[in-house]
Amino acid sequence: MDKVKVGILGATGMVGQQLVRLLERHPWFEIAALAASDRSVGQVYGEVCSWRVSADMPAAAREMRVRPCEPQALSDCELIFSALPGDVAGSIEEAFAAADYVVSSNASSHRMSPDVPLLVPEVNPDHLALIDVQRRRRGWRGFIVTNPNCTVNALGLVLKPLHDRFGLRTVMVTTMQALSGAGYPGVPSLDSLDNVIPYIAGEEPKVEREPLKLLGRLEGDEVREATFAISAQCHRVATRDGHLESVAMAFEQPATVEEVKDALREFRGLPQELGLPSAPQPPLVVREEPERPQPRLDREAGGGMAVVVGRVRPCPVLHVKLTLLGHNTVRGAAGAAILNAELQAAQGYLRGRTL
Amino acid sequence: MDKVKVGILGATGMVGQQLVRLLERHPWFEIAALAASDRSVGQVYGEVCSWRVSADMPAAAREMRVRPCEPQALSDCELIFSALPGDVAGSIEEAFAAADYVVSSNASSHRMSPDVPLLVPEVNPDHLALIDVQRRRRGWRGFIVTNPNCTVNALGLVLKPLHDRFGLRTVMVTTMQALSGAGYPGVPSLDSLDNVIPYIAGEEPKVEREPLKLLGRLEGDEVREATFAISAQCHRVATRDGHLESVAMAFEQPATVEEVKDALREFRGLPQELGLPSAPQPPLVVREEPERPQPRLDREAGGGMAVVVGRVRPCPVLHVKLTLLGHNTVRGAAGAAILNAELQAAQGYLRGRTL
Amino acid sequence: MDKVKVGILGATGMVGQQLVRLLERHPWFEIAALAASDRSVGQVYGEVCSWRVSADMPAAAREMRVRPCEPQALSDCELIFSALPGDVAGSIEEAFAAADYVVSSNASSHRMSPDVPLLVPEVNPDHLALIDVQRRRRGWRGFIVTNPNCTVNALGLVLKPLHDRFGLRTVMVTTMQALSGAGYPGVPSLDSLDNVIPYIAGEEPKVEREPLKLLGRLEGDEVREATFAISAQCHRVATRDGHLESVAMAFEQPATVEEVKDALREFRGLPQELGLPSAPQPPLVVREEPERPQPRLDREAGGGMAVVVGRVRPCPVLHVKLTLLGHNTVRGAAGAAILNAELQAAQGYLRGRTL
Amino acid sequence: MDKVKVGILGATGMVGQQLVRLLERHPWFEIAALAASDRSVGQVYGEVCSWRVSADMPAAAREMRVRPCEPQALSDCELIFSALPGDVAGSIEEAFAAADYVVSSNASSHRMSPDVPLLVPEVNPDHLALIDVQRRRRGWRGFIVTNPNCTVNALGLVLKPLHDRFGLRTVMVTTMQALSGAGYPGVPSLDSLDNVIPYIAGEEPKVEREPLKLLGRLEGDEVREATFAISAQCHRVATRDGHLESVAMAFEQPATVEEVKDALREFRGLPQELGLPSAPQPPLVVREEPERPQPRLDREAGGGMAVVVGRVRPCPVLHVKLTLLGHNTVRGAAGAAILNAELQAAQGYLRGRTL
Repeated sequence: MDKVKVGILGATGMVGQQLVRLLERHPWFEIAALAASDRSVGQVYGEVCSWRVSADMPAAAREMRVRPCEPQALSDCELIFSALPGDVAGSIEEAFAAADYVVSSNASSHRMSPDVPLLVPEVNPDHLALIDVQRRRRGWRGFIVTNPNCTVNALGLVLKPLHDRFGLRTVMVTTMQALSGAGYPGVPSLDSLDNVIPYIAGEEPKVEREPLKLLGRLEGDEVREATFAISAQCHRVATRDGHLESVAMAFEQPATVEEVKDALREFRGLPQELGLPSAPQPPLVVREEPERPQPRLDREAGGGMAVVVGRVRPCPVLHVKLTLLGHNTVRGAAGAAILNAELQAAQGYLRGRTL
Repeated sequence: MDKVKVGILGATGMVGQQLVRLLERHPWFEIAALAASDRSVGQVYGEVCSWRVSADMPAAAREMRVRPCEPQALSDCELIFSALPGDVAGSIEEAFAAADYVVSSNASSHRMSPDVPLLVPEVNPDHLALIDVQRRRRGWRGFIVTNPNCTVNALGLVLKPLHDRFGLRTVMVTTMQALSGAGYPGVPSLDSLDNVIPYIAGEEPKVEREPLKLLGRLEGDEVREATFAISAQCHRVATRDGHLESVAMAFEQPATVEEVKDALREFRGLPQELGLPSAPQPPLVVREEPERPQPRLDREAGGGMAVVVGRVRPCPVLHVKLTLLGHNTVRGAAGAAILNAELQAAQGYLRGRTL
Repeated sequence: MDKVKVGILGATGMVGQQLVRLLERHPWFEIAALAASDRSVGQVYGEVCSWRVSADMPAAAREMRVRPCEPQALSDCELIFSALPGDVAGSIEEAFAAADYVVSSNASSHRMSPDVPLLVPEVNPDHLALIDVQRRRRGWRGFIVTNPNCTVNALGLVLKPLHDRFGLRTVMVTTMQALSGAGYPGVPSLDSLDNVIPYIAGEEPKVEREPLKLLGRLEGDEVREATFAISAQCHRVATRDGHLESVAMAFEQPATVEEVKDALREFRGLPQELGLPSAPQPPLVVREEPERPQPRLDREAGGGMAVVVGRVRPCPVLHVKLTLLGHNTVRGAAGAAILNAELQAAQGYLRGRTL
Repeated sequence: MDKVKVGILGATGMVGQQLVRLLERHPWFEIAALAASDRSVGQVYGEVCSWRVSADMPAAAREMRVRPCEPQALSDCELIFSALPGDVAGSIEEAFAAADYVVSSNASSHRMSPDVPLLVPEVNPDHLALIDVQRRRRGWRGFIVTNPNCTVNALGLVLKPLHDRFGLRTVMVTTMQALSGAGYPGVPSLDSLDNVIPYIAGEEPKVEREPLKLLGRLEGDEVREATFAISAQCHRVATRDGHLESVAMAFEQPATVEEVKDALREFRGLPQELGLPSAPQPPLVVREEPERPQPRLDREAGGGMAVVVGRVRPCPVLHVKLTLLGHNTVRGAAGAAILNAELQAAQGYLRGRTL
């Protein structure tokens, strides 16, 4: 089978680089085009990109000439991954969808749009039904699917089986987020060394809102958001990759610590069932050692696509607390967008652009 | 006036070193003796101590010969600071109190003993009345006063004015604690670099319990503990000094963000009123910048004795959330023990040991 | 005596901030003006400056309105400290000197100009005689005096007594330089964490050249450069402040390790003799412990103005090797410029600008 | 072909863990036994080992019961990897060799013994002829082969082609060594954060001596050491893995920068020729970017077995300088011992122990 030709928007940034790395040997997808801002257009990717995600840039990408982020410039592609910054992603992604492309986006612009799926394939694969709503309303043959914020990708995976079994009432989450989440150059080293920054611009509102859509119920043409309350406190710490999140939860139904662990351990989603190439087996890893998960030791679990949970224990204020870790640029961004596209491919949404 | 002669138990550890540093030019106290474990006894302090708290060890301390942690060995001292590890502090401190010494302890052993004050001078100076109870019950002329755990020292200072004005119902606290809190050698660098450890042995139970005694009410011969619920999640991060704590609270009385800030800003305690040498003016610093407090920038506020608060904002689950920072080995340990002793001195509890 | 009114060019950068901090309570100088690039002009310093050098900006500076870097805008000042970047400093400093100001510059632009003193007051105070040459040649009543590159300030201090006693033939220096040397935002944290960067743009040529002028001999109207060979290898490491330099040297005269240590220990310069306010006593600290100097422990020696030397030992290839540490933004930049100005003041070069 | 059964001495330490990791799927060798100090003997490896080298311990190792470091306890093994500390390795390794085992050692004890090969397979494979000398002199059927110190493994690889072509006269090397080189717990985080330690106990003498044997010439029954002079200055920096070494060299024959690069680029050794499983292709990677090699980006080159060289440029004092990087626990320790054993296997030295 011929691989699906894909283009990457925002290919020179940290998430763009992870997309290039993760797609290097992908069994279904093949990079045909790298696109970025005007500053880089026309230049060779190997020269304009400050490659930071591994030792060496994949050889194929190195020689590619960077294209503009315009539909006509990527006409040899069918599937578009968008790693654009939130402030420019909106209209560009719409232009691509209008021009028949399938857009798998990591940007925040359309996450909360009512007719755009905010998708984590293990959590709400049925929300893909919004694609038809989106096409109908917007008159597009292409479409946009988004993944949540890096913090919410991991959090949502953990909340899903607990919400299903016990019903979430309230969620308190305190994050210790990695430097790569701020992009490159991102956080100055003088602010990071021997320090914690107790603020990430725009982050807390996303963490308090996106899980409600993600765990919402599809009713007819729309998603009815979940109604539990979330409070987020977000911090930047001196780790390279891996967002650590300490979470306390109250449930509608009583749940013991063991029942919570069982729910997490037993959780499987559609990607695991379908055996999607990027699906981790299992999606959630529950550890019993008191000092795990740790970013350095656990972020590569399941190739960066599994979420590691530890310290599940009773909470004196709410019901249960735990700590979770997800790789922010893999499960939280590039890998999320890829898994989303894999699900769409498996379910027949990638039927080829009308060229 | 002659300075009070003091001895330091556990003088070679991190807290012991901070005591040596902070007492170098103290207006009321003068170091007469340094004591430590058998391994160091008889050796010169400058040689056995891995000095880590500043560039150079104070010259006076450098030449002192380390003594054993026994009452008869420190007979030229009146006031004893204990920076002993929790597992040995209990009986040693009792031996000193029984031998007429005043013991200002940073160890955990007696913190929850009903007849031992767990003191933060700005918070519960009236608990010093327990000294008489302690003497009566134990038949001592000396006595023991303790300060709380490093995390609780800072947290208690912030909770105090809020509990007084609005009544605390629940407190959720997530900490990002500095490496110096684990002592020396403490955390291996391979566990600290590019990492967060979501566990500190024995810490969470202390954080969930000690504030209740600290904010409790003295009734007759005992402290009736406060009754609000606390849940703690403690993490070790790669900072040298300064524990960062993100806190969410629910109150009995409604409180706006502005009212909370006002309560914190207006807070003064007895040490400020008495002008104790180590009392910061003010004890709480409230900052408005969204990205403060930060350990590197704020830990030295008030000479390490002030607690810096920021990000006061509404909490979608409880009522108000905020982030606070306290210097863990100054306000959280050595400085706390010194301020406690200053209050005792100011209130006439240091009347001279019966030699 | 009225304090000399000073202005700071480039006041918002890292070196500018150190100047503001160090001049806050200076006995001779008083900040009258803060100047910076067009982007900041007209705004309040407290708002445009990302203050990073200590907890709180000095209150006086906070309210000052930033002025343009033009002579007429700083007419209430007599002495100008230039912390401008090298690419713009040249012409601006010349304009100030032409307008009768005394300019003490940390910028690289004029360091190697034949009629501009490249000054470390302990090393070559006689080079101030170039001021007259400079005025004569350029027709200025003001003048420019520079300090060396951050690495060379510390290195030059150590080389001086050794060159005087033993004659340097060759010097090999490998540096491990702190993040603050790259300014703010400077080095991205993703490049600094768990990493060393073996390159600092433009640094090695400066380190290989400036010491030759610094240790040169004034002959008539010019400095005859020293003739020993220097080889530099410069690295950026994850320290906040303090450049560590490991040095190996061959001498013209035989020198034992003890003789080298003696030469370093006995070294005093004119600033120590004159008791200049910023002069460290002594300028060089020689330590015997095998694992010193260390940036974290030793950078504040002498208020950041002393250089700490350790590990003096024989070199199997050259003659002697050692490791030295200097605070890069104090002795290496802001403090250097201030000490230079103090020497000029003490020697009568600050006679008041013709207003 | 049946795999060779191997035992690991010192299996719980950092190098022992790397051996376990690297041998997990080795095509020729299979772990049959894990041995460690008395403290661990009899316990399950998964429980006594503080696993730090990757996310998860290999499943096979996890269940193994730790054995004592005695020949009779490892009788099912033929090949022994020794990751023992230098102070105990000597006699234990001799006992194994005397009991017919082949010992591939990373310990320092026998490195400089005249009848023990100090081997880097690309550098001096002919030194394996010392095995016969060793057996003859000691009356063993087994034997010991060692690899150099972590710093020397990488340095020796780079020096080899240059010594062959141009003849080394003098070598100055300044190292910035990773934390993992100090083992676990190793360097306290309080000494590592925001710091450099300019001293590593016992390291410099090894770096100044071992390359001379490594690059020595086998003459009859002995190695005639090379005669160039080496001077080493060793530092511990805050990187996890990867020793960075900045080197300056003088040659007997004139050599341009381009000739040096060519010699490095063209270098191949016997392991590359034989296609040994752990042999990197090529062994030396020469990069042209001014800011490479960097520990974080380059330590995994060639699976951690290649050495990356950059910044090759003229030296104003000696002839040429450059910076190199080698993975200290792979090419510098565990991988070195494995490659040594592979060469012995390929050359018929592993003929089976007389059981």
